[in-house]
Order: sequence, then structure tokens, then C-alpha cells
Amino acid sequence: MGDAARDGILHRVRAIVREGVVLLEPDFLAGGLGAIAPRLDALRQRVREEGLLAPHLPPAYGGAGLPLAVFGRLSEELGWSPLGHYVFNCQAPDVGNMELLLHHGSAEQKERFLRPLAAGAIRSCFAMTEPDRAGSNPVWLATTARAEGTDYVIDGRKWFTSGADGAAFAIVMAVTDVLAPPHKRASMLLVPTETPGYRLVRNIPVMGDAGSGYFSHGEVAFEGCRVPATARIGAPGAGFALAQERLGPGRIHHCLRWIGVCERALHMTCERAARRELAPGVRLASKQAVQHAIAESRAEIDAARLLVLRTAERIDAEGAAAARADVSLIKFFVAGVLDRVLDRAVQVHGALGLTEDTILSFWYRHERAARIYDGPDEVHKSALARHVLRPYGVDVEI
Amino acid sequence: MGDAARDGILHRVRAIVREGVVLLEPDFLAGGLGAIAPRLDALRQRVREEGLLAPHLPPAYGGAGLPLAVFGRLSEELGWSPLGHYVFNCQAPDVGNMELLLHHGSAEQKERFLRPLAAGAIRSCFAMTEPDRAGSNPVWLATTARAEGTDYVIDGRKWFTSGADGAAFAIVMAVTDVLAPPHKRASMLLVPTETPGYRLVRNIPVMGDAGSGYFSHGEVAFEGCRVPATARIGAPGAGFALAQERLGPGRIHHCLRWIGVCERALHMTCERAARRELAPGVRLASKQAVQHAIAESRAEIDAARLLVLRTAERIDAEGAAAARADVSLIKFFVAGVLDRVLDRAVQVHGALGLTEDTILSFWYRHERAARIYDGPDEVHKSALARHVLRPYGVDVEI
Amino acid sequence: MGDAARDGILHRVRAIVREGVVLLEPDFLAGGLGAIAPRLDALRQRVREEGLLAPHLPPAYGGAGLPLAVFGRLSEELGWSPLGHYVFNCQAPDVGNMELLLHHGSAEQKERFLRPLAAGAIRSCFAMTEPDRAGSNPVWLATTARAEGTDYVIDGRKWFTSGADGAAFAIVMAVTDVLAPPHKRASMLLVPTETPGYRLVRNIPVMGDAGSGYFSHGEVAFEGCRVPATARIGAPGAGFALAQERLGPGRIHHCLRWIGVCERALHMTCERAARRELAPGVRLASKQAVQHAIAESRAEIDAARLLVLRTAERIDAEGAAAARADVSLIKFFVAGVLDRVLDRAVQVHGALGLTEDTILSFWYRHERAARIYDGPDEVHKSALARHVLRPYGVDVEI
Amino acid sequence: MGDAARDGILHRVRAIVREGVVLLEPDFLAGGLGAIAPRLDALRQRVREEGLLAPHLPPAYGGAGLPLAVFGRLSEELGWSPLGHYVFNCQAPDVGNMELLLHHGSAEQKERFLRPLAAGAIRSCFAMTEPDRAGSNPVWLATTARAEGTDYVIDGRKWFTSGADGAAFAIVMAVTDVLAPPHKRASMLLVPTETPGYRLVRNIPVMGDAGSGYFSHGEVAFEGCRVPATARIGAPGAGFALAQERLGPGRIHHCLRWIGVCERALHMTCERAARRELAPGVRLASKQAVQHAIAESRAEIDAARLLVLRTAERIDAEGAAAARADVSLIKFFVAGVLDRVLDRAVQVHGALGLTEDTILSFWYRHERAARIYDGPDEVHKSALARHVLRPYGVDVEI
Repeated sequence: MGDAARDGILHRVRAIVREGVVLLEPDFLAGGLGAIAPRLDALRQRVREEGLLAPHLPPAYGGAGLPLAVFGRLSEELGWSPLGHYVFNCQAPDVGNMELLLHHGSAEQKERFLRPLAAGAIRSCFAMTEPDRAGSNPVWLATTARAEGTDYVIDGRKWFTSGADGAAFAIVMAVTDVLAPPHKRASMLLVPTETPGYRLVRNIPVMGDAGSGYFSHGEVAFEGCRVPATARIGAPGAGFALAQERLGPGRIHHCLRWIGVCERALHMTCERAARRELAPGVRLASKQAVQHAIAESRAEIDAARLLVLRTAERIDAEGAAAARADVSLIKFFVAGVLDRVLDRAVQVHGALGLTEDTILSFWYRHERAARIYDGPDEVHKSALARHVLRPYGVDVEI
Repeated sequence: MGDAARDGILHRVRAIVREGVVLLEPDFLAGGLGAIAPRLDALRQRVREEGLLAPHLPPAYGGAGLPLAVFGRLSEELGWSPLGHYVFNCQAPDVGNMELLLHHGSAEQKERFLRPLAAGAIRSCFAMTEPDRAGSNPVWLATTARAEGTDYVIDGRKWFTSGADGAAFAIVMAVTDVLAPPHKRASMLLVPTETPGYRLVRNIPVMGDAGSGYFSHGEVAFEGCRVPATARIGAPGAGFALAQERLGPGRIHHCLRWIGVCERALHMTCERAARRELAPGVRLASKQAVQHAIAESRAEIDAARLLVLRTAERIDAEGAAAARADVSLIKFFVAGVLDRVLDRAVQVHGALGLTEDTILSFWYRHERAARIYDGPDEVHKSALARHVLRPYGVDVEI
Repeated sequence: MGDAARDGILHRVRAIVREGVVLLEPDFLAGGLGAIAPRLDALRQRVREEGLLAPHLPPAYGGAGLPLAVFGRLSEELGWSPLGHYVFNCQAPDVGNMELLLHHGSAEQKERFLRPLAAGAIRSCFAMTEPDRAGSNPVWLATTARAEGTDYVIDGRKWFTSGADGAAFAIVMAVTDVLAPPHKRASMLLVPTETPGYRLVRNIPVMGDAGSGYFSHGEVAFEGCRVPATARIGAPGAGFALAQERLGPGRIHHCLRWIGVCERALHMTCERAARRELAPGVRLASKQAVQHAIAESRAEIDAARLLVLRTAERIDAEGAAAARADVSLIKFFVAGVLDRVLDRAVQVHGALGLTEDTILSFWYRHERAARIYDGPDEVHKSALARHVLRPYGVDVEI
Repeated sequence: MGDAARDGILHRVRAIVREGVVLLEPDFLAGGLGAIAPRLDALRQRVREEGLLAPHLPPAYGGAGLPLAVFGRLSEELGWSPLGHYVFNCQAPDVGNMELLLHHGSAEQKERFLRPLAAGAIRSCFAMTEPDRAGSNPVWLATTARAEGTDYVIDGRKWFTSGADGAAFAIVMAVTDVLAPPHKRASMLLVPTETPGYRLVRNIPVMGDAGSGYFSHGEVAFEGCRVPATARIGAPGAGFALAQERLGPGRIHHCLRWIGVCERALHMTCERAARRELAPGVRLASKQAVQHAIAESRAEIDAARLLVLRTAERIDAEGAAAARADVSLIKFFVAGVLDRVLDRAVQVHGALGLTEDTILSFWYRHERAARIYDGPDEVHKSALARHVLRPYGVDVEI
């Protein structure tokens, strides 16, 4: 893709986000997804008509086939609003499930699940984290799928299954061979949510908000939930390897989105600093503390973007496995930048920053999770240290 | 008060909080104040019967007449739960209003408003901050109260009027003499909320939660709202001076409460670290990052407590005016400790810390305001610097 | 000791430090201890004549018998200059050695070594840390003292033996029973430095400065160094226990001194901010970044002092063992405050802060060690966490 | 320049630094430049023979004509040792003076001063900062050069004139038109150091070390120092503009070098962590605190490098003026990274990190200046904020 083509796409995306999606935010904040559903669908339809839906997918599935480094630029534009990725049908966890099915789904799975997912006709979820097992230890799962004839029977409980509310199917990690080495115990199974024994227990209130639809995090029970062997994605015991492959890009998708969040928060900070008077004629922007907050955010966001784009380029060029340490690096670094940029934005906004009169408070409370999900900071730091220390003959245990 | 008497009170308070108040938290988180109203009232009744209601007030008003330094210890116990201060009828902003009326109210105001407030029969609010004027500049108000005969007619708009929902009266800051020097322009007026022209516009959603009752922050309109001159508290033009006097102890009340919040958060962090397994037999507490988080919180909380108690002792001994710089010091220092202690607690709890399954998420989002309300960090730092630099011949403008 | 007596002493100490000791700093910075030796001795003589030498010791040894909490106030005054403690003969490591001999020395050791040490006639050193063994693990020593008849023969190498240059004797930690449990292996031996086999290898250049006399850190070799059994302090195998007892107060002595360093640095920062012009009529103090630096230092120093004094009071009341966790807490907390206060002072001084035209640069480079010696931050944080987590059933390994 | 050519150069540079220059460090630390002078010259001669001297200059002056972005990679290699840039004759302040003369020197100045400077036959210095005027305000100078006939007569005092000791000439900023607007008052004059009235007062002890030769910072007096009008570089009154042009790349030269310092410090940290035992078989690298320190340094260094290279590319493509805000951004960001990376390296090295047994202590004390020279952090943050806020209609005063 040439630069001009790319810039043309970015320009169109930016217009849709800043002139359309952003306008839905006040009603979304006041009333949730339900309050904006028809307008959100209309925007999605416009995106579909402009050929920009699911831009990360190859043309065979209706996408634009963008390499990750270009998609990254686009994702930053979408991150400007919490609604952006959904409107373009590249929101987590669907974006990760699409990539997983694209690369590892069977022909039947692609036809029956990937195609409607790519078209935005259905949504999906990914059930991995368990309430009783540390999410930072992905090889230690309590959920099992035991083979019975040609079926698997799944039992267990998952939580933080994002978007479970309204999902047409779940991809679930379950132990299929308890005697195998830890990294070979689990398999991935695709479970339509109408399957008997599958149950959405609740939308977990997160930071005070149970949410709904794709803005929700479900607790999900599997109780004797039976699926055929063809529900398995990839080989038996390949669950952990596939999850790693899925999570690498998944993490970078988050990082790319966070850059957009940061840019919007900094933009709002500047607008506020330029406008708000502390006394007649004395603007917030004249205060050194505000100037320095703006400068620090600007520097950190630029650093974050360069690191993320470098990682995206490496994934494009060498694959996700080669970039594993880079992904750990950006996961904790960018989450930290996001945390600080949002904190500064709230502080400069003062009481206004706490209200629902701007989008900042939504991000402040919901993006605290960034330093936890898909591996907490502590795990990614040790993972990066393992990579750095290996040439020195050290094997870091995590 | 002797040490034994004090310890006896603290012991009783602690029992009520830890064995009673805390048990209401899950239903409060799930359903708000409404879901626990009868049980909350029952606890209050028990406190009333034990003679512990409004412990900061003198016995003439039914209180225990505790000096601030002793009340501080008690307040820390109450801070263990967000419901603690309410149960003992010493929650903000009522606690500040009681002190204000006690020291500056007319006999009539004391009888008609302070007495039922002290008894927990009514609630009140304090209307100072305005949406269009920086809260950090308390002498720059748009709300006016113009004299008409023996009345004042109030016009203006306030927000972050905490507890306006359900309050029986508001104490409002309004400009009564626009031509006076800035610190002499405003007066304080006591406005019963049934007064025509007074209107609660909305409970402002704060961090996603509009709340209700005393857990709410109102936007309040004064539209030709007429009150008699006897509604004034103190002298004409004394509003700013009274607000300073009210806010000094008000800030220390917050700091005292925050210590309690911090202790609970650290306690929960330790419990979590001791219990949570990362792998079979490997506890979170074995991780150096968790240990260091606990040690840093322990040290910072101890530092915060000592600073707050020193300030309380100074206020007891020398009055609020003498301790103004100390109050600025603890306001930003303790708010910073609170911020970090809660952040570490959430991080150690992982995904659980984001849910409503513990009280942490409630505090994480609601106490972000601590670095903003009653003067943002930036203002208190400059105020402290002004005090420190004065002996060097410098007059810091804020 | 009454408050008036204490304040009288503090007043006299302050005068000697601020009107005498401080005046030697420029020549000390330019030429080292050698350049000021006669004037330093003269000041010491004055202190001796005023009866203030070795104020931490009981009157039987010529001291003032101050409790630790009072000595702490005095030590803060002395810390105002890097020369203060020496002038009053309570500098590390002599202060710790005096306490050790006072409580555990034999009658002969007290007479022969403690008495001249207390009188300031000789100096001493403490040889514990070894170049090849982590200082953070005090039970893992390579230096041995094997019994031969009624003698010990010591072999090994120590470093960071502060003040070895010019010391009349060293107290050395050496393994006397390699088969004992780790905490019982070492004993303490008092070795006069003229003993054959004892050798000062070098004064280690620390932050570019090898120093001399009591401002130096020696590397010391023990090569078949023979001392009689009467050289042992305390029981065989008691070395670790005695070292713990010695280091607890030793650490608090450092913390008390650091408070003084911080106060001086903040004082200099304020003077600089008040005086330095950025443009005609525009003082550094008008800059918000400078104000906030001052406020943060003020708050952190106050917090540090309160924590240190609380610990001193506990040691006075309950002994060093009871205060072990408190000592760990202040060791890392106050070292961190010192680090930040000095960093801010240097930054506000700009280029001047890097030169030897003020005392700041001396402290900046020499006090970096504060976060390392007598246990690095990391060890003290884990030690505090062990204490905090014990009631939760966790035993933290360090 | 093709990638292969560039990589070939980098490979040769790396070999000279790591196999040659680094070996001189111990004697340099023990005895200063004097102790290694012949070996340093020999290395320089080898570099000269390999055609790598002054690699930033065009071939006409014996250089390699590298664009800044390529030179940046090379500079990082050189930064591995504090002696690297000198060996390749691209050390500050000569590198900046060379660029200044190259672009703005007269033909005579180029022939007489630039050529021997480029050849490494002489050294030079740059006299701008004054002891009595804030370095952060470059338009406020006390040094004057008044016109007398066709001469200038210079009077004033400068300090932090790096490398003045042994320099053949100084380029000095002096006010030539006191009535002009502030940015037009000063001119740049080239003053051979044998000129009467020029005097090196002292090498300022910086962090305890007066240094010598190019490792020194001079205080310089101009006392009726007379130079001909041809000594002026550029137009009358162009001093500030030229200084800005000189300092932009000068700052990036520092940043590029700091990346090399950081990489070496991280490398040493990893080696130490891998080798040092805390107990038999327990390596420092097994500690989470050490792992996290390594990960944070790795992430921050990568961020710093990407930001610096982006800035170098912009300067190559658009010139220094277009990149002014970028330069401010990297100046404070990379100086902060340097500060933290060195601090972590020292901490992981423990007592060893304080000694002269490694290069860390040298950097720790000398690179504290990085957050001060060429504009303190505070000024660059406000400068960046000015750039960021301009589109919002705000004009930030600094």
C-alpha cells in the first residue's frame, strides 16, 4: 500500500470518528450502549458502505488487508473515542478471534463463524481467565474439556470474558490432557453460546459499571457443556501456543488503541488549559505545572507510539513469535503512559474531569485495567528481563 | 480525656465498624444507599444509643467533645468503610457545617439547624464551587446575593455541592459586595432547601455514578432565591474568612478519613497477597514486587498519619489559622499517599480489584477526587511554599 | 532531661555548628580534612570544654547521657554540616563502636579502648562488609578466625571499612565456627591496627574521592592476623546478634543525620530561590516548579523526621529489637527522601549545584550510598513486608 | 550512504571502542587524562589512519560526511566510554564549534581554525554561560564587546566553559549592541586564547573533580580583551540566532551520546545481575526488583533512542529550526532516562557501584549535569508546551 492510499484511508477514518463517532459519546455516557444503538448501527453501516469495515482482515473477508503497522495508524484514529473500534468492527476481543480463525480455523469454522463476524453480523468472546486461578499464569487452568466419544464435555468457570453479553460464540481455553506438560494441556474450543451447559452468569460490575453488549465483562459457566470435536481450533493441546499467538497481536491492538486514547486526552488537556481561567485573564496554560504536565505527556506519547510502531513493523516482517519481548516491553510501557496521561488530563480538568461531562472519567476508570489484563505489568517486566538477560546466561523464572 | 477512656471509645467504634458497617458494603456496592437504608439507620440508632453520634461535637449538642487529635483516631476507624462516617453522623459536608454553626451560627441558627443536624435528623450541604469559576480561586465567584430591604436575593449556579440530594438546608457562598476587596466580597447564607428559587438541578455523575443522598454531588441553581438577612452566618463580607476557617478542619477531616481508607486497603492487600496462589504453593506474597508495594504503603501510611496527627494537635493547641500551612502540607501529601496505596491495592488484587466484589474499586474511582477537591495539589504546594519562603523575604503568589 | 535543659543544649550545639563548623566547609571542599585539621581540632576542643563531646554516652564516659530521641534532635543539628558529628565525636562508625563496647565490651576493653575513643583521643573502624560477598546477606562471610590455642588467627578481606585510615583499632566480623547454624557462625573481634597481619590496603575511591581519615572507606586485609581470645567481644558465635544490635541504632544514627542534611539542603534551596534572578526582577521563587519542589521537600522531610523520632522513642522505651521493623522502614524511607531532597536542591541551584562552591555536590555524590550501606532499600523493604505480613500467616524470605 | 557501508563503519568503530578505548578507563579513573595521554593519542592516530576522525564533517575537512541520523548510531557506539568521542575527535564542545565554523565561519576562520580543529591538532571551547546570569535565559548576558575602531574589546566573566583548559581558541558570546532587542544584542567572537586579556581563572571543581584538558569546565575572564572585527562569526547581533543553531545539534549530540552511556550501564547491570551471588547459588538476577529495574531501563532506553533518531532524521530532512520542539522534547526526556538508568545501575552494583572500580560512579556524578546544561529540564518542558499549545491559541512565556 502506497503512502497516498494509506493517508487517504486515514483521512476518511478520522473524519468518521471526529465528526460522527465522537458525537455519540454524551448519550453513551448518560445511557450506555442502549441509548445510542441505532445511531451506532448507522455509523457502522456507513463504514461498511465505504469499505472500511474490519480493516485488519484480508479482502477475501471484506477487509482492507492492512499490514499491522498501517492498521496501527488507523487504530490510533479509532482510539480517539471508546466507540471507534466497534464502529469499524475491529474491537477486542472480536479482532483477536477473527485473526485466530483466519489463521487456524477449519474451513467450516471460517465459513460459519469468521464470515459473519467479519461482516459485523455477530459478535464473539474469548473465555480464558478464571476467577480462582491467577491470570498471570496461563498454563494453570481449572476448566476441563474431557473427551467423550467424538465430543468434548466442558466444565469450569471463566470471568472477564469481555463481550460475552450478546456474543454468538465463545472461544474457550480448557484442559484436554491433564497429564501433558503444562504448555500442552489445554485446547481451544469454539462454543456457540446457545449450546446447552453454557451460561452467562453475570456481567461483572467493573469500576462500578456492569456495562452491556461489547462493553461488558462476563462471568461464564460451563456445566457439562458438550461440543463436537470439530469445535476444536488447531491441534489437541495447542491451546497455549494459539493463545500466545493470539495475545501477541491482541496486546499490540490494545497498545495501538491506547495511543489514540492518549492523544485525545492530551488534546482535551490543551483545550482546557487554553480556555479555563483561574482569574480574569489568567489561563490554566500559564501555569508551569500545567505546561510541564503537557510536555511530559507529549514526550511519553511520542515515545509510546514509536515503540508500538517498531513492534508492529517487526511483527509484519518477522512474525509475532520474534517480537514477543517487544510486545512485553510495550505492554507495560504504554499502559504506564496511558495511566499517567489520563491522570494528568483529569487533574488539569479539575472537578470537570471527574464528571461524565467529558469522556475522561470513563477512560480513567476503565483503562486502569490496562496494567492488569493480558498480563500485569509485573509479568511483562520479568518477561522482558528474561529476554534481556538470556545472553548473559541467566534464565529468569516468571 | 484519659488514654483509657479514649481507647475504650476507639474499641467500641472499631467493633461497630468492622462487625457491623462493613457487612453492608456488598449490598451498597450492588444497589446503592437505597439498598441498605433500613440497616444503615439501625446501625445509626445503635450508635445513638451508645452515645457516640456526632463525636466531634460538645456534649451540649449530644457529642463526645473529643479534641481533634482524638477524633482523628476515631475518624481513622470510621474510614475503614465508606459508610463509617455517616453511621456516626460525622460525614462531610455535615461535619463542617456543624462546626461552622457551632462557632459562628446565631442562637436561632443553632437551635433551628444545628440541633437537628447534630441529632442526625436532617442533612445539609455546602454550596461554594461553581462550574464556570476555578475552584482553586475561592475569591472569584459569580453567584451574587443582592440586598433587597432586609432580604438577600441569590442568583447563581453551584456544583459539586456534596449531599445536596436530600439536604434540609444549604450554606451558600455568594458575593454580597462586589466592590469590596476580593477577600471581603462574599458572605455565607443559610438557605433551607424548600426556599423558592432554590433548585437541585441534578446529581452530577462522578466517575460514572450519580449516587444519591449523602453519596452524591449536586448541581444547584439559585434563581431569585430570597432569604432574610438573618440567614447570614457571621458578618457581611466574612464569607471567605469563614470558609477558610471551615475548610482547614474540613481538609483535616478528609485526611483523617483517608488514613482509614489506606489502612483498609493495605489490610486487603496483605490478605490477598497471603491467600492468592500464582501456581500451586506459590503465593503472591512471595513476589518481591508485592512485598515492596506493601512496604512502601506501610511506610507512607505511617508518615501520613504522623503528619495528620501533628496537624490536629496544632489545631487543638493553636487554632486552625496557625496550622494553615500544615493543612496545605497534609492535604497534598496524604492525598498522594491515598492515590498510591489504592493503586497498589488494585494492582495486587488484579482483575478482582476492578470489580465490585471488593470495596477497592469504589475507592479507586471516588477518591481520585481527593487530589482535586478542597484545593488541588498544585494550589496547596504553592501555599506551602509561600509559607516556607516567607522568612526568605519572598511573597509567593498563588 | 527537662525540655528547657534539652533546648539549652540544642541552642549551644546549633551555635557551634552554624557559626563555627560551617565556616570550615569551603576549605574542606577545596583541600580535604588535611586543610582544616587544626581548626577542626580547635572546635573539638571547644566542644570538649563545653562538656558536649560524645553526647550519646553516659556521664561515666564523659557524655551527656541523652536518650536517643533527644540525641536525635541534636544529631539533626550536627547533620547541618558533614563535619558536625566529627566535631562532637559522635560520627560513624565510632558512635556504633562506642555503644557496642559500652554494652558488650569487657572491663578491659572498656578501659583500654572505649575510654580513649569516648575522649576523642583515638578513632576506630568496623570491618564487616566483604568485596566478594553480598553485603545484604550478613550471615555469609568469607573471613575466618580460627582458634589456635588461646588465640584467634584471622584471614580474609574486608572493604568499605569506613574510617580505617588512622583508626587505632578495628572491630571485625569473622567466622569462628563454620559448622554452626548461619546466624551463629561469626564472632566479633577487636583488633588493634598495629597487630601484625592487619593491613590497610587502600582508601577506596568512592564517587571519585579516596578521602582520608574518618572521611574514607578502607579495604583491609587480614593475613594470619593473630589476636588473643580476650579480643572477642561477647560470646563466641554472637557476632551476628551483636551486629544486629549495633546496626539498629547505627541505622537510626544515619537517619537522624540525614534529616539535618535535608534541612540544610532545603534551606539552601530557599535561599537560592529567593535570590537568584532569571531575568531582571524575576526570581526563581516565582516559578511554580521551584515552589512545588520546595513544598515536596518540606513535606517529605517533616514526614521523615516524625518517623525517625517515633522510632527513636520506641528504641528508648522498648529496645532496639522491638523496633527492628521500624528501623527498616525509616532506613529506606528516609534514604529516599534524602535522595530526592538533594536532587531538587541541585536542580534549583543549576550549574552552581554541581560545583564545590556549595556543599550540595559533596552530599549529592557521597549520600548516594545511603540507599546501599547498612542494607540496600530492597532488603529493608522486604524486611518490613515480612513484619507486616506475619500476622497474615506469611513468612517472607529475604 | 548504503546500509552496508554504514554497518561496516559502525563495526569498525565498535571494535576500536570496546577493544581499545575501554581498556584505558581504569587508569583514567585512577589518574585522570594525564595518566593515559600517550595511549589516548595512539588510539586517535589509529582512528585518523582508518579515516574515521571527525566523522561528522564533510570529506573536504577529512570527515566521513555522515548525516546526523547515521552519525547518531556511531555516537551511541562512542558513548560506550567517556573517552570515545575524544578519540574520534567529535567531543563537545569542539563538535559544535566545528559545525558552527563550517556553516558560518569566514574563509579565513575555516582555514586558520576549523582545519586544525578537524584534524585534531588543536582544541577549542565555547564561552556562553555566566556565573551571575541564569543560563536558562540566554538573552541576558553581562559580558560586553564594545567596538573600538575596527576592534572589539571584550569584558566579562564566563564559566562552565568546557574544555577551556588547553583550548587554542574560545568562541565567546558577548553583547555588542545593548540597545537592540534582546535577541539581537549579542554577537559571537572567536578569541585565540593567547590574546591578551583572556584568562583561564580556574578549572571549576565539578562534583568534586576539577578535571583537566577536555574533561574540565573553566571559569574564564575577559579583561579588556581586544580582537579584530574579523573575529566575529556571522553578522553583528547574530549571536543568539547562531547559538540556537549551534545548540540544537549540540543537544542532540549529547542525547546520542547518552544513549551509548545508557546501553553500557544496562550491559554492566546485566553482567552484574548474572554474576553476583547473594547466597550460594542465588544470583541477583533472580530478584524481581532487579529484573524490573532491567526491564524498565531496557524500555526507556529504546524509547529514548527512537525519539532521538526521529529528531536526527528531521534535522537531516528539514533543518534544526524545524526540529526545535523535538530537540526540547529529547533534551529533558533522554536526560531523565539517563538519570534513572544510571541510578538503577549503581543500585544493582551496590557498594561496587560507588567505587572507581567501574565507570558507573564517574557517570553518576558527571552526568547529573545533563538535566541542567544546555537548558534545564524545566525550560525545555515549557518550550515543548509552548509548541504544543500554540495551535490552541496560547503563547507560553518561558
